[in-house]
Amino acid sequence: MHTLDVITKKRDGGELSREEIEFFIRGYTEGSIPDYQASAWLMALFLQGMTDRETHDLTMAMAHSGDTLDLSDLTRSTEGGQKLLVVDKHSTGGVGDKVSLMLAPLVAACGVPMAKMTGRGLGFTGGTIDKLESIPGYRTDLSVEAFKAQVEDIGVVLTGQTADLAPADRKLYELRDVTATVESIPLIVSSIMSKKLASGADAIVLDVKVGNGAFMTTMEEAEALAHGLVRLGEQAGRQVVALISDMNQPLGWAVGNALEVREAISALHESGPRDFREHVLTVAAEMLQLSGRARDPNEALTLALDKLSSGAAWRTFRAMVEAQSGDVSAIDDPENLPQASLVEPVPAPRSGYLEGIDAAEVGLAVVDLGGGREEKGQPIDHSVGVVVHHKVGDLVQKGTPLFTVHANDEGRLEKARERVLAAHTFSDGPVQPLPLFYRRIVE
Amino acid sequence: MHTLDVITKKRDGGELSREEIEFFIRGYTEGSIPDYQASAWLMALFLQGMTDRETHDLTMAMAHSGDTLDLSDLTRSTEGGQKLLVVDKHSTGGVGDKVSLMLAPLVAACGVPMAKMTGRGLGFTGGTIDKLESIPGYRTDLSVEAFKAQVEDIGVVLTGQTADLAPADRKLYELRDVTATVESIPLIVSSIMSKKLASGADAIVLDVKVGNGAFMTTMEEAEALAHGLVRLGEQAGRQVVALISDMNQPLGWAVGNALEVREAISALHESGPRDFREHVLTVAAEMLQLSGRARDPNEALTLALDKLSSGAAWRTFRAMVEAQSGDVSAIDDPENLPQASLVEPVPAPRSGYLEGIDAAEVGLAVVDLGGGREEKGQPIDHSVGVVVHHKVGDLVQKGTPLFTVHANDEGRLEKARERVLAAHTFSDGPVQPLPLFYRRIVE
Repeated sequence: MHTLDVITKKRDGGELSREEIEFFIRGYTEGSIPDYQASAWLMALFLQGMTDRETHDLTMAMAHSGDTLDLSDLTRSTEGGQKLLVVDKHSTGGVGDKVSLMLAPLVAACGVPMAKMTGRGLGFTGGTIDKLESIPGYRTDLSVEAFKAQVEDIGVVLTGQTADLAPADRKLYELRDVTATVESIPLIVSSIMSKKLASGADAIVLDVKVGNGAFMTTMEEAEALAHGLVRLGEQAGRQVVALISDMNQPLGWAVGNALEVREAISALHESGPRDFREHVLTVAAEMLQLSGRARDPNEALTLALDKLSSGAAWRTFRAMVEAQSGDVSAIDDPENLPQASLVEPVPAPRSGYLEGIDAAEVGLAVVDLGGGREEKGQPIDHSVGVVVHHKVGDLVQKGTPLFTVHANDEGRLEKARERVLAAHTFSDGPVQPLPLFYRRIVE
Repeated sequence: MHTLDVITKKRDGGELSREEIEFFIRGYTEGSIPDYQASAWLMALFLQGMTDRETHDLTMAMAHSGDTLDLSDLTRSTEGGQKLLVVDKHSTGGVGDKVSLMLAPLVAACGVPMAKMTGRGLGFTGGTIDKLESIPGYRTDLSVEAFKAQVEDIGVVLTGQTADLAPADRKLYELRDVTATVESIPLIVSSIMSKKLASGADAIVLDVKVGNGAFMTTMEEAEALAHGLVRLGEQAGRQVVALISDMNQPLGWAVGNALEVREAISALHESGPRDFREHVLTVAAEMLQLSGRARDPNEALTLALDKLSSGAAWRTFRAMVEAQSGDVSAIDDPENLPQASLVEPVPAPRSGYLEGIDAAEVGLAVVDLGGGREEKGQPIDHSVGVVVHHKVGDLVQKGTPLFTVHANDEGRLEKARERVLAAHTFSDGPVQPLPLFYRRIVE
């Protein structure tokens, strides 16, 4: 088989065989196919598209390009003789998306093991690993052995990618990023699913964000992505539920690493923003059903609410932080989390109904403050961020706090204030609040 | 301006501005744009196409990416007070295409300076430089100064590319070769024309080959290419004539470097194959008219025939070989050119009308013999080759010589014999001879 023939076939609109896709992925992973051939192939895939069969074969080839985790022997997945499925969750990324911080301990407290590897932030979206690292001492570089032992022990782990999972996807993703071949549904879904399959998930809840703070800005794009993910999961023999959720304003109030950890801790104590709490409970209920832990939505929600109000979810979070060497005094009293030196509430410039908050602009303001990164590998400041005080639809009174900027530099504070102020728009008449979820898509 | 934006714009079917094209070509030539971004861009150009305006801008950007030759001050271009145009010729490549060897001295003998840089062979097509190097001592690496001085002195030079002309084209061509982005009309025409413009041509005759021994195998493709070249020349303010010529059998009889030089020498002495002689005279007549040396086809042909029969063309060839340090004893008596140790005439396996000769197969048989190269930089054996004894339409008698193989190795000879035999097909009924030219295209 020849690399050029595979590129030519796709260039001319042909359907690649499984063997051709595996040949290309293997060659690119090993390095025998150079970047410049892979990028020509990616552009041909982008423009000529891929059938569901090709997308599935690409996903499986990438999923098997490196190590794969087998979590099926986790003793904790057996509950009363019943084998629970290993369930995972993936978000397509948004602003203020701190869901995993609360979701993982909550679901684990319900008896479903959560062995989750997660990532860092880039651009206007944050990353769970960055957020966790604002807890002093918290380790995100566990070995595969430590990872598995911790799930066995306390039922939950939230860490960075430890094993060399789906290296083909990582390599291709980096190449797509610099060759204008990111925004392709088949390439996006195969990238997401290959990692989830390599990390041993039997069932997956996909949180597909749509809106001004998401990669998919239109419902049409989000639906195409959600359907693609669900079909692909089906083909791979996995149970998949996709939820299309709103990202036309930040999720919750806090945007910024330590600020989001603090908000998650509040929510675990049944305080904090209502939208964030409801979002987490909805996703948790889906996961409890997929795993086999709950039979129906009612049972799932009842169980989750119970573990939240009893403090079990909070205790599981605390045990996880402790197991991963985090300083529990910083979560027992969040005043001990990193704090910015300058905290400035910004008053509403007018009275009116809040019409919109451009979430991407809020995310970028936090990047400007030093709380995110424009390029991979940049260090970040965990203490900075923005806390919004209103959600779309709220009636806001002029002069009352609209949002608060947490900064460590006067100039940056000024810049963030202007940017976030401009991101808020007002209306004289009533504005409909935004829903949390738009669609639930299953095969 | 950002590289990613330019790739994205073309990916989405947009028309690139001149500034965007120049930005990309400059960046790629300098190395600030890496191969993997250029190949994604090339695939997008391939699949989304280019407007005539974009093709023109790409051509000009590549033409000006390195040195450019100015031949306008050649004193010999002034003939009786009239300034002749600098005229060049380009062939899209074929099998047995030794046209430049005879054309350049013939046109020069008619008083039109021929300062021609030419290339090496790759794959089934030969290259003029390789052919000339079968003359012992012949230098193809003249400096720009020596190149210009020789045209001033004797009116003709045939050498390899000396100045660093159109380096962007060279770099992009190598990348296209390994990324399945070769067969694009806008990319092909801009590649051809950028080199011709950089080398200072005012007027160009394009010999567009069509058939089983050419890159364009259908008339439709050849016409699209010819029209693209003519339109592009027009836009660049150059006079361009495209001739679509037949390449469904080798041109002339000889295929192989020294064998082709020998055939060109025969033709300069008014001997040799009729098709080759007529092909050269037709192209020469076009060039004499384009340069301003002849007013009409009749005057042009009369002049060329006169210079051929008077021996002036041959003497010009001989002067060129001498000026470029070639051993004139090897052209005065071609027995002194490199000769293969094994010369085997192969008899016709049957009687009948010759229906076809697959020219690409003949070319590849010569590569197998060592007379061509599969990869750049390979050394070649100048002495080997194949001489066909019949043209399509000939009535062939069983047992008489069909072709002759010149080889230096028994095994290779055997392989070439079988391959060339299989390339000949016969018919019981009469077969129409093939024309030399199909179309003449001017704006």
